[in-house]
Amino acid sequence: MSKIDMLAVDTIRVLSAEAIQKANSGHPGLPIGSAPMAYTLWAKHMKHNPANPDWDNRDRFILSAGHGSMLLYSLLHMFGYGLPMDDIKNFRQWDSKTPGHPEYGHTVGVEATSGPLGQGIAMAVGMAMAEAHLAAVFNKPGYNVVDHYTYALTGDGCLQEGVSGEASSLAGTLGLGKLILLYDKNDITIEGKIDVTFDEDVKKRYKAYGWQVLEVEDGNTDLKAISDAIEEAKGEKNKPSLIIVKTCIAYGCPAKQGSESSHGSPLGQENIDAMKKQLGWPYDEAFVVPDEVKKNIDELKAVFAEEEKQWDTLYAKYAKEYPELDKQYKEYMKPVDAKLFDDAAYWEFEDKPVATRQSSGEVLNKLAAKVPNLMGGSADLAPANNSLMKDREFFSKENRLGTNIHFGIREFAMSAVSNGMSLHGGIMPYCATFLVFSDYMKGGIRMSALMKQPVTYVLTHDSIGVGEDGPTHEPIEHLAAMRATPGVYMWRPADSRETAAAYCHAMTTKAPNTIALSRQPLPQQPGSGKDALKGAYILKDTDGTPDVILMATGSEVELCVQAADELAKKGMKARVVSMPCVDLFEEQGDDYKKSVLPCDVTARVVVEAATSFGWAKYAGCKGEYVTIDHYGASAPAGTLFEKFGFTVDNVVKKAEAAVKK
Amino acid sequence: MSKIDMLAVDTIRVLSAEAIQKANSGHPGLPIGSAPMAYTLWAKHMKHNPANPDWDNRDRFILSAGHGSMLLYSLLHMFGYGLPMDDIKNFRQWDSKTPGHPEYGHTVGVEATSGPLGQGIAMAVGMAMAEAHLAAVFNKPGYNVVDHYTYALTGDGCLQEGVSGEASSLAGTLGLGKLILLYDKNDITIEGKIDVTFDEDVKKRYKAYGWQVLEVEDGNTDLKAISDAIEEAKGEKNKPSLIIVKTCIAYGCPAKQGSESSHGSPLGQENIDAMKKQLGWPYDEAFVVPDEVKKNIDELKAVFAEEEKQWDTLYAKYAKEYPELDKQYKEYMKPVDAKLFDDAAYWEFEDKPVATRQSSGEVLNKLAAKVPNLMGGSADLAPANNSLMKDREFFSKENRLGTNIHFGIREFAMSAVSNGMSLHGGIMPYCATFLVFSDYMKGGIRMSALMKQPVTYVLTHDSIGVGEDGPTHEPIEHLAAMRATPGVYMWRPADSRETAAAYCHAMTTKAPNTIALSRQPLPQQPGSGKDALKGAYILKDTDGTPDVILMATGSEVELCVQAADELAKKGMKARVVSMPCVDLFEEQGDDYKKSVLPCDVTARVVVEAATSFGWAKYAGCKGEYVTIDHYGASAPAGTLFEKFGFTVDNVVKKAEAAVKK
Repeated sequence: MSKIDMLAVDTIRVLSAEAIQKANSGHPGLPIGSAPMAYTLWAKHMKHNPANPDWDNRDRFILSAGHGSMLLYSLLHMFGYGLPMDDIKNFRQWDSKTPGHPEYGHTVGVEATSGPLGQGIAMAVGMAMAEAHLAAVFNKPGYNVVDHYTYALTGDGCLQEGVSGEASSLAGTLGLGKLILLYDKNDITIEGKIDVTFDEDVKKRYKAYGWQVLEVEDGNTDLKAISDAIEEAKGEKNKPSLIIVKTCIAYGCPAKQGSESSHGSPLGQENIDAMKKQLGWPYDEAFVVPDEVKKNIDELKAVFAEEEKQWDTLYAKYAKEYPELDKQYKEYMKPVDAKLFDDAAYWEFEDKPVATRQSSGEVLNKLAAKVPNLMGGSADLAPANNSLMKDREFFSKENRLGTNIHFGIREFAMSAVSNGMSLHGGIMPYCATFLVFSDYMKGGIRMSALMKQPVTYVLTHDSIGVGEDGPTHEPIEHLAAMRATPGVYMWRPADSRETAAAYCHAMTTKAPNTIALSRQPLPQQPGSGKDALKGAYILKDTDGTPDVILMATGSEVELCVQAADELAKKGMKARVVSMPCVDLFEEQGDDYKKSVLPCDVTARVVVEAATSFGWAKYAGCKGEYVTIDHYGASAPAGTLFEKFGFTVDNVVKKAEAAVKK
Repeated sequence: MSKIDMLAVDTIRVLSAEAIQKANSGHPGLPIGSAPMAYTLWAKHMKHNPANPDWDNRDRFILSAGHGSMLLYSLLHMFGYGLPMDDIKNFRQWDSKTPGHPEYGHTVGVEATSGPLGQGIAMAVGMAMAEAHLAAVFNKPGYNVVDHYTYALTGDGCLQEGVSGEASSLAGTLGLGKLILLYDKNDITIEGKIDVTFDEDVKKRYKAYGWQVLEVEDGNTDLKAISDAIEEAKGEKNKPSLIIVKTCIAYGCPAKQGSESSHGSPLGQENIDAMKKQLGWPYDEAFVVPDEVKKNIDELKAVFAEEEKQWDTLYAKYAKEYPELDKQYKEYMKPVDAKLFDDAAYWEFEDKPVATRQSSGEVLNKLAAKVPNLMGGSADLAPANNSLMKDREFFSKENRLGTNIHFGIREFAMSAVSNGMSLHGGIMPYCATFLVFSDYMKGGIRMSALMKQPVTYVLTHDSIGVGEDGPTHEPIEHLAAMRATPGVYMWRPADSRETAAAYCHAMTTKAPNTIALSRQPLPQQPGSGKDALKGAYILKDTDGTPDVILMATGSEVELCVQAADELAKKGMKARVVSMPCVDLFEEQGDDYKKSVLPCDVTARVVVEAATSFGWAKYAGCKGEYVTIDHYGASAPAGTLFEKFGFTVDNVVKKAEAAVKK
């Protein structure tokens, strides 16, 4: 390592501090402290080509400590990812490419949105899993067309979060040798010295997970030691590596270094000036990248570009030698072909009552036969979730070809890992647990939505239909919570065909879909099918204007269909509207919406074994509700539905009441 | 250990299997495998008096692996906690005392609701913290009036969940010597052998956390080894202890032992018969507790009762010698005195704009002066959350008298630990983070609600008002998600007095309160105050029937007040309704509700910097919305409010539109 490298490191330090100062907002501590390890990684080890940030075989880098975003922006600017200095100057301002935390899809070169702590590590685990699997599928002797490392940079915060522990335990079990975690150990958090909350032995913990753990004593100035550690980490092929890099937060800033006050607030101009002096930084003016640093990086960029070129050459030869694999590779890298859903067989099911969790298993296995890059599993509930792809093997340390995943009892990591697999490209991930435990992974689902990742969440046991397991396992508020979350499609299909519609949407939309599925058998509804893709549709109608509209989702659609028959006997005309995906119905045009729910039919009944919260929008002022606004109970499901009013009789009664209003 | 003990163990095994068989639902594996350790603990070590399950100084026991509920019910029945055999026979049936997972408040002797994995361990950590603190406050030489252990029993599942890792790291840091975790290591999960997901070295991991780790090689039959390990664990006063007990799942049942098929399904009658034979169980009929077991436990119960009697005697002497402490102890053990809120000073604040997070800090510190058993802190955001009690010290390994807590960057554990402190009794816990990170701890908040625990959640940075930190840190759906959750009071105060109302309710209600607080300053609203305790109230009215009602919460109330003035200039009569707690408004009588939101005023505008989801109920069919149904952005808060339509002008426009409808 040479003087020019240290100057580049100081450039990151100063640039980050200055941008944060100008914004009068941000986190200087981490960028300044982590600059040596990040620069060393990007300049000396990482395989990337700033000229083509989408190169499939690039090494991945996630700044798990997302609050240190200026570190990443400094790197992206300096390495020529097309992030102009003007955006650095507009850090954290409206419409800039430099938001407070890195945002995937917003800034070129950002591999994952980060900031919610711990998830970056878990997403890195997902990326490393994707790489390992794709390498196994596509590589041939002499042709390592998929062959890259995944790096993440983390602070103490990410390592305290449970999700990182879950993911790291999984990574150890899976022996993800090409996953390398750089830990900026500065021993400072917002509330002060780390030992007030965190005096555990992280090294020992990661060894317990089955990781290789390396240490760098002086992460502030010893670029060679950092580089050597990264080299050693790269050499260990059977275990993920944690490199503990001891640093001083805000190193080089006399009044701030080593203090928590540098974590989340601008240093102050006088302290930046003092830092410049201390570092021997020769420029008074702000926002300078020294010419020699630029020149040096230009030289590196030529090397980077050459590396991709070599890969292009390798791939071209590979494509010739293995045309079938080439074709398959390209298909993996593309979104799922929507034409797949034109196949009538996809929509055909036996006409018998089955639980939608079973329909889900059936659909998943139909898809597995057509979508080879479907990859996923459950948080230890596969038999209950029906989330197994039956003709596939399990992904493991020994078998990278497997596509079923044992995620373990780690819901949060499961969702974040799935996000990582999706972000990597080449994989269509899904994951499964009980709907009630969507609570455990809400932070990950929100990230799927923020990053517009097509992760499919298979959420079975979707109501008090859970029965004997009782209130801890019976979702009440979860459908509403998901519907309230922007960018998430919450499905609750009523039968097999609606379940097929949910998966069809999940496979062809750049967004997460959460699919709530029944534990108990539901009859197939005549008339259900592709109309479900409108979110809500008339499942059963009456002649002329209906007296009342019965709206339901999932297992309660059946009640409405039967209630409509009962009402007909009493001379009342009822329309049954199935609403498997309220979010999608919201996206339809006004004409369609009004055709399903005409304004002049104000007698409406909502039937859903979940909270009434959020339903008034469709029930209207005169709406009646067959819903449950309290926790469930432990008893056979049939008893619970009866006790809590989910009966045909009660729906009929409510319909009559609505009509009378 | 004697033959009678082994017979008692087998009684638990058989009783559990039989109850699950009769219910045709449940989890026999864990009760059968864990029976030896659980019985040994309850019979030989645990200080408890079944005749008085509420004895303050009892040892606490949490079945963190809540799916093994029949283990606990067998123990409660056999040890005479008043759980009749009829309830064992009605396991998992409607209205029985034996629901699928243990439910606090439902079954006498159940110390915590469990089932959602990992949280039981974290609640145990909270209980141990409560014990350590109360012991420091009240014990005097010769008078250890607070002096008990906290035990939890866990399976592999709980240990895979991140929340248990977070809590265990905290417990190690705090050196909670009286916390003892029994780990039923049967190496089986639902998806099969544990090593497919979890081949980490748990022993090494817990040592890394700073725990003592002990091992029992034969947890199936070696009651002495179990007992010795518990004894050794009790002897270590400076570290929490993990006892790894190797067992065979469903031990004694020939066709099922060691297999995942015994985890979550009844064994089958033929397998129960075979198990009886293998164990040498002499009773053909089901649901038998042998007389000699009963007799033995009766003898134990006499010893248990004597132990409480000794404590009673000790306490009586203590009360005489330390009358002030006695008085204080009794106050700690009671709910907060509601009279405290009659004090006018509590409701008085300077008339200047402050962020409600700052008001919150002020109110918290007013309370700290009057409620000595208030105890809490932040997940490393104390300076931003204003969650510090300024005249208090920090709770630590060295200082058990402290009541401020450094929870570390562990939101989920923070909420579960707070639940544990609350369940213990004697502590009023609160915890703090950003509102958006309520996602990370939703599982814990739900448990607060299920168990009706008065945990106060201080959730600052409650909207796009977060500003520069951007969309990962800006809540959109979180107010709705909490409102949708039964038993949680979601507050969003508009100024200091409404913040005081939120805390008043939080301190005097047997339920969790979540308080969303602004980052940015808000003016004090004339007319705000105790009316906030109705959930919604008329903050600013007009003469006669209003033309339009403007409804808002928190920071948007200010916009409505200003818009009302603007509308008045245009000759339109607007009422402003502040709705700091929608959940509480729902509990008011119809007359009050209609007095605030009269049916005939259909022109309504909802103003809240959050999703519109859930507001239609109050906005009605002609309602207009100033809300945000997409993710936020990174920019100064003022810019975001402007860009996203949270302006007086826009509210005025929407009001005019609503009136015209």
